[in-house]
Amino acid sequence: MTAKSSSSSDRLTDSYPDILLNYAHTEPGSIPGTFAIDDRAKAPEINLIDYNSDLHHYGTNLTPEECVAHLSTESVSWVDVGGLGNKETLEKLGEVFELHPLILADIVNVPQRPKLEDYQDRLVIIIQMVNFAPKNREIWLEQVSFVLGKNYLLTVQEEPQQDCFAPVRDRLRKNKGTIRQHKADYLTYALWDTIVDGYFPVLEMYGEKIEQLEELVLNQPTKTTLGKIHQIKRDLLSLRRAIWPQRDMLNMLIRDGHILISDRTLRYFKDCYDHTIQIIDTIEIYRELTSGLMDVYLSSVSNKMNEVMKLLAVISTIFIPLTFVAGIYGMNFNTDTSPWNMPELNWSWGYPLCLTVMLAIALVLSAYFWRRGWLN
Amino acid sequence: MTAKSSSSSDRLTDSYPDILLNYAHTEPGSIPGTFAIDDRAKAPEINLIDYNSDLHHYGTNLTPEECVAHLSTESVSWVDVGGLGNKETLEKLGEVFELHPLILADIVNVPQRPKLEDYQDRLVIIIQMVNFAPKNREIWLEQVSFVLGKNYLLTVQEEPQQDCFAPVRDRLRKNKGTIRQHKADYLTYALWDTIVDGYFPVLEMYGEKIEQLEELVLNQPTKTTLGKIHQIKRDLLSLRRAIWPQRDMLNMLIRDGHILISDRTLRYFKDCYDHTIQIIDTIEIYRELTSGLMDVYLSSVSNKMNEVMKLLAVISTIFIPLTFVAGIYGMNFNTDTSPWNMPELNWSWGYPLCLTVMLAIALVLSAYFWRRGWLN
Amino acid sequence: MTAKSSSSSDRLTDSYPDILLNYAHTEPGSIPGTFAIDDRAKAPEINLIDYNSDLHHYGTNLTPEECVAHLSTESVSWVDVGGLGNKETLEKLGEVFELHPLILADIVNVPQRPKLEDYQDRLVIIIQMVNFAPKNREIWLEQVSFVLGKNYLLTVQEEPQQDCFAPVRDRLRKNKGTIRQHKADYLTYALWDTIVDGYFPVLEMYGEKIEQLEELVLNQPTKTTLGKIHQIKRDLLSLRRAIWPQRDMLNMLIRDGHILISDRTLRYFKDCYDHTIQIIDTIEIYRELTSGLMDVYLSSVSNKMNEVMKLLAVISTIFIPLTFVAGIYGMNFNTDTSPWNMPELNWSWGYPLCLTVMLAIALVLSAYFWRRGWLN
Amino acid sequence: MTAKSSSSSDRLTDSYPDILLNYAHTEPGSIPGTFAIDDRAKAPEINLIDYNSDLHHYGTNLTPEECVAHLSTESVSWVDVGGLGNKETLEKLGEVFELHPLILADIVNVPQRPKLEDYQDRLVIIIQMVNFAPKNREIWLEQVSFVLGKNYLLTVQEEPQQDCFAPVRDRLRKNKGTIRQHKADYLTYALWDTIVDGYFPVLEMYGEKIEQLEELVLNQPTKTTLGKIHQIKRDLLSLRRAIWPQRDMLNMLIRDGHILISDRTLRYFKDCYDHTIQIIDTIEIYRELTSGLMDVYLSSVSNKMNEVMKLLAVISTIFIPLTFVAGIYGMNFNTDTSPWNMPELNWSWGYPLCLTVMLAIALVLSAYFWRRGWLN
Amino acid sequence: MTAKSSSSSDRLTDSYPDILLNYAHTEPGSIPGTFAIDDRAKAPEINLIDYNSDLHHYGTNLTPEECVAHLSTESVSWVDVGGLGNKETLEKLGEVFELHPLILADIVNVPQRPKLEDYQDRLVIIIQMVNFAPKNREIWLEQVSFVLGKNYLLTVQEEPQQDCFAPVRDRLRKNKGTIRQHKADYLTYALWDTIVDGYFPVLEMYGEKIEQLEELVLNQPTKTTLGKIHQIKRDLLSLRRAIWPQRDMLNMLIRDGHILISDRTLRYFKDCYDHTIQIIDTIEIYRELTSGLMDVYLSSVSNKMNEVMKLLAVISTIFIPLTFVAGIYGMNFNTDTSPWNMPELNWSWGYPLCLTVMLAIALVLSAYFWRRGWLN
Repeated sequence: MTAKSSSSSDRLTDSYPDILLNYAHTEPGSIPGTFAIDDRAKAPEINLIDYNSDLHHYGTNLTPEECVAHLSTESVSWVDVGGLGNKETLEKLGEVFELHPLILADIVNVPQRPKLEDYQDRLVIIIQMVNFAPKNREIWLEQVSFVLGKNYLLTVQEEPQQDCFAPVRDRLRKNKGTIRQHKADYLTYALWDTIVDGYFPVLEMYGEKIEQLEELVLNQPTKTTLGKIHQIKRDLLSLRRAIWPQRDMLNMLIRDGHILISDRTLRYFKDCYDHTIQIIDTIEIYRELTSGLMDVYLSSVSNKMNEVMKLLAVISTIFIPLTFVAGIYGMNFNTDTSPWNMPELNWSWGYPLCLTVMLAIALVLSAYFWRRGWLN
Repeated sequence: MTAKSSSSSDRLTDSYPDILLNYAHTEPGSIPGTFAIDDRAKAPEINLIDYNSDLHHYGTNLTPEECVAHLSTESVSWVDVGGLGNKETLEKLGEVFELHPLILADIVNVPQRPKLEDYQDRLVIIIQMVNFAPKNREIWLEQVSFVLGKNYLLTVQEEPQQDCFAPVRDRLRKNKGTIRQHKADYLTYALWDTIVDGYFPVLEMYGEKIEQLEELVLNQPTKTTLGKIHQIKRDLLSLRRAIWPQRDMLNMLIRDGHILISDRTLRYFKDCYDHTIQIIDTIEIYRELTSGLMDVYLSSVSNKMNEVMKLLAVISTIFIPLTFVAGIYGMNFNTDTSPWNMPELNWSWGYPLCLTVMLAIALVLSAYFWRRGWLN
Repeated sequence: MTAKSSSSSDRLTDSYPDILLNYAHTEPGSIPGTFAIDDRAKAPEINLIDYNSDLHHYGTNLTPEECVAHLSTESVSWVDVGGLGNKETLEKLGEVFELHPLILADIVNVPQRPKLEDYQDRLVIIIQMVNFAPKNREIWLEQVSFVLGKNYLLTVQEEPQQDCFAPVRDRLRKNKGTIRQHKADYLTYALWDTIVDGYFPVLEMYGEKIEQLEELVLNQPTKTTLGKIHQIKRDLLSLRRAIWPQRDMLNMLIRDGHILISDRTLRYFKDCYDHTIQIIDTIEIYRELTSGLMDVYLSSVSNKMNEVMKLLAVISTIFIPLTFVAGIYGMNFNTDTSPWNMPELNWSWGYPLCLTVMLAIALVLSAYFWRRGWLN
Repeated sequence: MTAKSSSSSDRLTDSYPDILLNYAHTEPGSIPGTFAIDDRAKAPEINLIDYNSDLHHYGTNLTPEECVAHLSTESVSWVDVGGLGNKETLEKLGEVFELHPLILADIVNVPQRPKLEDYQDRLVIIIQMVNFAPKNREIWLEQVSFVLGKNYLLTVQEEPQQDCFAPVRDRLRKNKGTIRQHKADYLTYALWDTIVDGYFPVLEMYGEKIEQLEELVLNQPTKTTLGKIHQIKRDLLSLRRAIWPQRDMLNMLIRDGHILISDRTLRYFKDCYDHTIQIIDTIEIYRELTSGLMDVYLSSVSNKMNEVMKLLAVISTIFIPLTFVAGIYGMNFNTDTSPWNMPELNWSWGYPLCLTVMLAIALVLSAYFWRRGWLN
Repeated sequence: MTAKSSSSSDRLTDSYPDILLNYAHTEPGSIPGTFAIDDRAKAPEINLIDYNSDLHHYGTNLTPEECVAHLSTESVSWVDVGGLGNKETLEKLGEVFELHPLILADIVNVPQRPKLEDYQDRLVIIIQMVNFAPKNREIWLEQVSFVLGKNYLLTVQEEPQQDCFAPVRDRLRKNKGTIRQHKADYLTYALWDTIVDGYFPVLEMYGEKIEQLEELVLNQPTKTTLGKIHQIKRDLLSLRRAIWPQRDMLNMLIRDGHILISDRTLRYFKDCYDHTIQIIDTIEIYRELTSGLMDVYLSSVSNKMNEVMKLLAVISTIFIPLTFVAGIYGMNFNTDTSPWNMPELNWSWGYPLCLTVMLAIALVLSAYFWRRGWLN
């Protein structure tokens, strides 16, 4: 959820991660609106895209003040902030966009639970994005905050170099689709939809993992398998917690509407809402499958143990009586003292007879185990 | 859910399937309404039935444009599209039926979660049909989309040659029942009801499977049994996910009504709704039974292991002391050195006595186990 | 639920039953209202009781047409149909009582989920009755349908000879209580209440079964016990599914009232509703107890196994070292070659010393096990 | 719940109880309002307290008719009936207090699910009281019914000698607190609150039991522990079923008010309602703890078994190879025939060498087990 | 929850605690409003802070009467009471603040379930605070009660020396933030928020504990681990029970507002509400993880046992046949009597051959186990 967790490579497959399951919080009793900035957080980098159907202006590495002029124009201004490492810049941003100190703190003190704050003239949306690096199958969550105004959109991300929004920037630059004919509300939709759609490939990966585990659990249940199942359970819990409130937020938007969102765009938000439902649906199914896997695991281990036990029982049960017979004829009773003392030892056919008896015992017992189905 | 999963034969009984538990989705950030057409999808095949109480016209392999003329007539036109493999035809269809790009994408990008979109003059219904090939007990889901207009119904399926609707086509052709006296709303009901009723034979099959497993689990719990239980759990999850939203959609239709659906037909939709409730009811019971089976499995394996352990314990406990006694009299203490050194070896009745003692020990121990009920 | 399941004797105690967990359904795509009549269904037998406070008329083996005259009189007419084996009679009934084809199909195609259909001038109620033959502890469900009109009540059961309603017929004949002073609504109540109260003795039987199992599971957990627990779980699921919708139906009746049901009678329906709540309450408790029993079973088997293991470990641990000692002195090192070769064999007190050492080992180990509490 | 269950001493700790998990019911089909009086029920004993701020009149062993005169006076009359063993007296009571036959049956046919019947001029409340005999830790439920009228309160209990209300009688007699300044509504509160508060000491006892079990389950899991956990689960289910509807009843009273209950008294009912919430809260926590205990039990038994297995494995693994070595040198190959036949036997240092090898094997294996942590 | 539980050091890590899972209650039947004061409760200590933007007055160790004068002034008066050990002082407080006897009893008889009582001119809030001593990781709950009036706030805590509010007192004294510009409603928020935020560090500690346990459970599952998992489950239940009602209370406040709370301050309460949701969210995730851990534990123990069993089986299966062979050639059949009696003993290569056969058997069996993967 923070830069820290993303730096440990391949955490889902190899070792236990340091996902921060706790939300961010300040010292109890501190002044409301206090920032809790992580030392490792990078300095904010502010980019701006100002566009309408005809126009496309791109500015990089701006200061909050440089953005002000763009906000009041008719064209849509997208102020894209990446990095949360500088208190002054963030406070300046708060001033420029007239954010309540509590909201600004929620934007800065990551991670927060996704939430939607409805002011009359602005809409603040805080959500969790899932990042997925397919090469090392690394996954981490990142908070993205939206402040939607009349002709502008402010987005704040944890990382300066974030490629998730690249396709949207590309659509803006190349004027693909209808995105430049819409207002800032459609841009909000386009970005949020990108974030929501980003859950699908991650879930596909988990789907594959679960299928692999199903195979493993039945055939070679090991300690590693067990750890992986628990890990997936844990990850699914995190994902569910990140997507669930977004569904509620979208539902609220669609149901109640908002002055800043046109009816035409609301239709698109509905589509985005449908996607969150599909994601939650899938997560719930995966959670049930993973829970089931844990039961299968335990049964599978018991099965294995049963096989081991059977082998041990078969071997022991066959050889213990044989060894006993051999032990009998290894006794040293004096055959000279009395004709009752182990006369078998002096029989001409004593030894072959003894071996035959042993063979017979072994065969009878084997047949018994065969009939009980213990030998396959 | 796609052609792929249906091509693997007998997947539910023999091996792990490739059910796509994930819903379809496009690349995150792509333009809304983008198609994600599977390479293996077949070219769409468009058939049309135009009918009223007197008339029955059947046209095959039409183009979308050829259908246009029929749509505005008073007679009911059923445009039946099978196959999703041609982008241009599908886009043409979207134009002819004036479908919103997002809806068209939902129809094309299979599978989607079942949904109902209510436009004033049209009703779009996307549902999941279950296909069941009884000979090899193969099961797969297929998306069917309905667009209900004033005098027409468009249906879109994944496969061109789909026999599930055959009975309805037959009723239309032979004028069986009252179907040709009704409008397109009744046709929608008739098809949807056919799809919903298609879940019943599938559930019956699962009912039989579960009963077989109940027998197996108690008497011969093996790894295969375990895999089958998990598989059924998984399938039931998929079925539930497919039917659950259909219940909600039907409930919404009945509660709110729709301008395109007459009150008389609504009565029939209510019947269809009752069927979805019965299906969900049955799925839930099966799910509970399957969950219970997992517990029974584990207990049953433990039971088996207990039996194995008991046998091992009985054999070991009886023979170990006997072998020890034999071991004693196999020791080589010099009887000549001292009268205290193993005088038993020189006794006249030493050997028989020894055997008698052994027999006594064996009998006492056997009696003990008999009393504890370990020998049955 | 059908005649079939009731014919297998004592199914709950001895073997796995053939309860039809699936609801009845017709071939997918068939004309709505199609009958699915079981070959083994018996021919319908129509009886009629026409009564008011002064009058009591009883007619047996009538045809539907013979009943018509009674329906319009002021006195209450109870038309009691048993058996679903004749398509024509049933269709005739549908005509006489002006039943919608879908409702008639629900009455005929048993079993259906309990439902309540509210027409203005008639009320159709379909419910599940539980039959209990105390002698062989056999249980099966049977569908009973009510059609309540202004001055008549039609009841349709699966079996012609059904004694469950006998006490009500008796009250009518002997004019016991106030039943003959009321209208058809009170008769409906009286019959429904009889059906609902029929669940109590069945639940009592399950309560006893569960208590017996609690004893068994702790003391003698066997495979049969396991099967019985699963069986009870299954039966309780069926019972719950049968009673749950009846509660909702009664609640709806009480909340909304109905023109055919007087306020005075509604008070009685409320009592019946309270009984369904008590039944559901009890079923839920039994379900929780049965679930708990499964856990207890598993723990109990583990406990037993632990005991077996302990015995094996005690015997092995005591005798294996002893046998080893005996094995040592059974070695054939040549005492003549060297004084270092097993001089013990030639000691005067070698053998007694050896036995003493063995005894000491055995005692020490036994004491150890005693202290660890493994010997009780 | 009845006199029967209370007569078996110490049932919660020693043996399985005969709690009637089923509610009372009459023969299916019997006339509504029929009594089902237990043979062992004691004859009703009627006492009366008539009071206001100045007056306190106490009458014992009255007949229902003797109470009539008091009911219409301005002073509050508390008619306290204990025992349900006489049909005539109870019917007389029903007449005097003008009770509907169904309500009277609910009061008499114990136990019923707690319920609240709201007539305009009277309020009927049926609840379950928990009785707790601390000396033998015996617990049983008893039904108490209230009929609240304008200036009177009728209470009906199962037992004539019931001390639970003693503190309230004492407050009335000694004019403690403000109870005599209030009307019958406050008396209802005072009694109901006493009943609700009676659940707290019982829950405290279960809290202690659970804590003891937590200790036991981790350290000495035995069959008895298992039975006790299941027993507590069962008792908590019963208690929950008894208190849950009382919460709903109190909530309804507070939300809707009632003409017989003054606003001032309603404030007190709110307090009583808070207590029911606290009780349910605690029961739920205990239920979760008890469920957890079952899992801990199973894990704990597995742990124990693991220890046993480890010991067995250590002993076997060390001694089996040693015994094998001893077995080798116990073979009788003729050393005279060939120099290859067991020359070790004739070595001077053969025996000490052999012992040394054995010791070495034992040490190596012990070290191996030490490193794997099996020896602690 | 009381002083008692806080005095046992390090209870969460070392031993089972004496958390009072039961709520406080008085003797059943006692007069409503009775106090149940613990003998160990400390005498109440009353401090007062009287402030507005310009003023800051601090008074310590006051009597209730000394506070009266401050309450009616325009400046905000915070009366902070710590300790519940003196009945008279508490009754005096109740008089001064005009508290209903039932509310006063709830404040005094700790712990109570958190609740909110809305009088028109005052608001009574009872909540549970979590105390956390990081050095010995000790955790206990403490009840804090608020009485909010027009210009005053009364807070009552269990302990006189409570440092949790220190940061707020500090902000008041040093005039940090805007706290002194607000009214008593903001002070209520500031204190409540401090209490709510106090749950975060505690949850972080549990998060760490759970991560440690995840490691332990997979690698070294011991009895202690099991106890710790159960302990965490128990603690999370307690925390959830303490925070859950606070969420509802805050939600009600936000939804309905209150005359004593300004809209500006309500915005802050909303933030506090969001925190409670985050806390509950985290607790639920921890609860699911802990439940999962129990399953992992059981599987892990089974795994360990499986390893032990495998070793035992391998050793036994290899050596038992070898020992049998050695036993054979230890038999004493007389080779002189007959050429059939153990001629191998006299073969020149008998002994080496025998050893070779043994080696071969050992190798074949080892290879077999190697192939089955039992040797890693």
